Amino acid sequence: MTAETTVAPPHGYAADKDALLKRLRRAEGQVRGVARMVDEDVYCIDILTQVSAATKALETVALQLIEDHLAHCVAEAAAQGGPVADAKIAEASAAIARLVRS
Amino acid sequence: MTAETTVAPPHGYAADKDALLKRLRRAEGQVRGVARMVDEDVYCIDILTQVSAATKALETVALQLIEDHLAHCVAEAAAQGGPVADAKIAEASAAIARLVRS
Amino acid sequence: MTAETTVAPPHGYAADKDALLKRLRRAEGQVRGVARMVDEDVYCIDILTQVSAATKALETVALQLIEDHLAHCVAEAAAQGGPVADAKIAEASAAIARLVRS
Amino acid sequence: MTAETTVAPPHGYAADKDALLKRLRRAEGQVRGVARMVDEDVYCIDILTQVSAATKALETVALQLIEDHLAHCVAEAAAQGGPVADAKIAEASAAIARLVRS
Repeated sequence: MTAETTVAPPHGYAADKDALLKRLRRAEGQVRGVARMVDEDVYCIDILTQVSAATKALETVALQLIEDHLAHCVAEAAAQGGPVADAKIAEASAAIARLVRS
Repeated sequence: MTAETTVAPPHGYAADKDALLKRLRRAEGQVRGVARMVDEDVYCIDILTQVSAATKALETVALQLIEDHLAHCVAEAAAQGGPVADAKIAEASAAIARLVRS
Repeated sequence: MTAETTVAPPHGYAADKDALLKRLRRAEGQVRGVARMVDEDVYCIDILTQVSAATKALETVALQLIEDHLAHCVAEAAAQGGPVADAKIAEASAAIARLVRS
Repeated sequence: MTAETTVAPPHGYAADKDALLKRLRRAEGQVRGVARMVDEDVYCIDILTQVSAATKALETVALQLIEDHLAHCVAEAAAQGGPVADAKIAEASAAIARLVRS
């Protein structure tokens, strides 16, 4: 988010950025589609099917982000060990818990 | 979705339409926010927090749609009884199952 | 749970009682299996697979109970209409929300 | 699971073993409670509340196992790096995905 991002070490998802953005654009379109269906008085059950599709798309994005995060940020911290590694693992676990409970 | 929608019996969510549309517009903004965060190389965990918020918003929409559907479409079919009632309840149960498993 | 249960109108799941009990006995065995795996120091990932199986089994029980509840208790209340019907539908919706969020 | 378990390197959850076993015994009791409620024709909604409690208990066990697994098995593999680290992270990610989708 700063002018230095191009020289900063890339985040875990750097290699999947294009795929993530494409998937998020599709998810955004699905949510907009749900709004349009509500606006056009489409039958409730058909709207729910579309809501489930959007939710699943977001879930796939989240799982990709977690895998990339473990493979890079967490793995690098673990390789260094010590309190930084512990903090990274606690942080990742909390994010996983939020996802499982959402 | 047809020219007759204004005279057709409204769907279960008719009374909540404005609230649903407002919530969906916010969810759409949240998904767009996630894409922007990915594009700007924001830290993975912060993106995951935003994905969870968008997922929860969609979940709230889905639960509202189900409650409205039960209170109107399913209740009216149940009042009539017979195979139409059975079909409505089976259809609602399948939608609930998709939501629970998504 | 009272002495009158044998003459009281059966609950929605009466016809599925045997199937539900069989499924619950299997789920109980799966949870006991998870405890045994922890006790015997089985590899974490293998335990997680078994936890997911037990969770899915409980989810299937819950979805069956909801479908039966809609098809009987809620449908009967809806056929009568009025505040009792409204209360039943609000109660069912709250139970569905708890399930979706758990 | 072998006679050597006492000398084998402990799994990630070793330090939490007692707490996990206690939680699993409670979850098992909750599932047995659900079966008893079905057997005694308890009201559907009350059974669903108990099913949600059992599901949440299993979820907490799963999240604890994942945190321990990341903090030990995955962290140690990451410290070594190479294909073993990659395989551990892919395996953990798949387990997280199964949990999120269950």
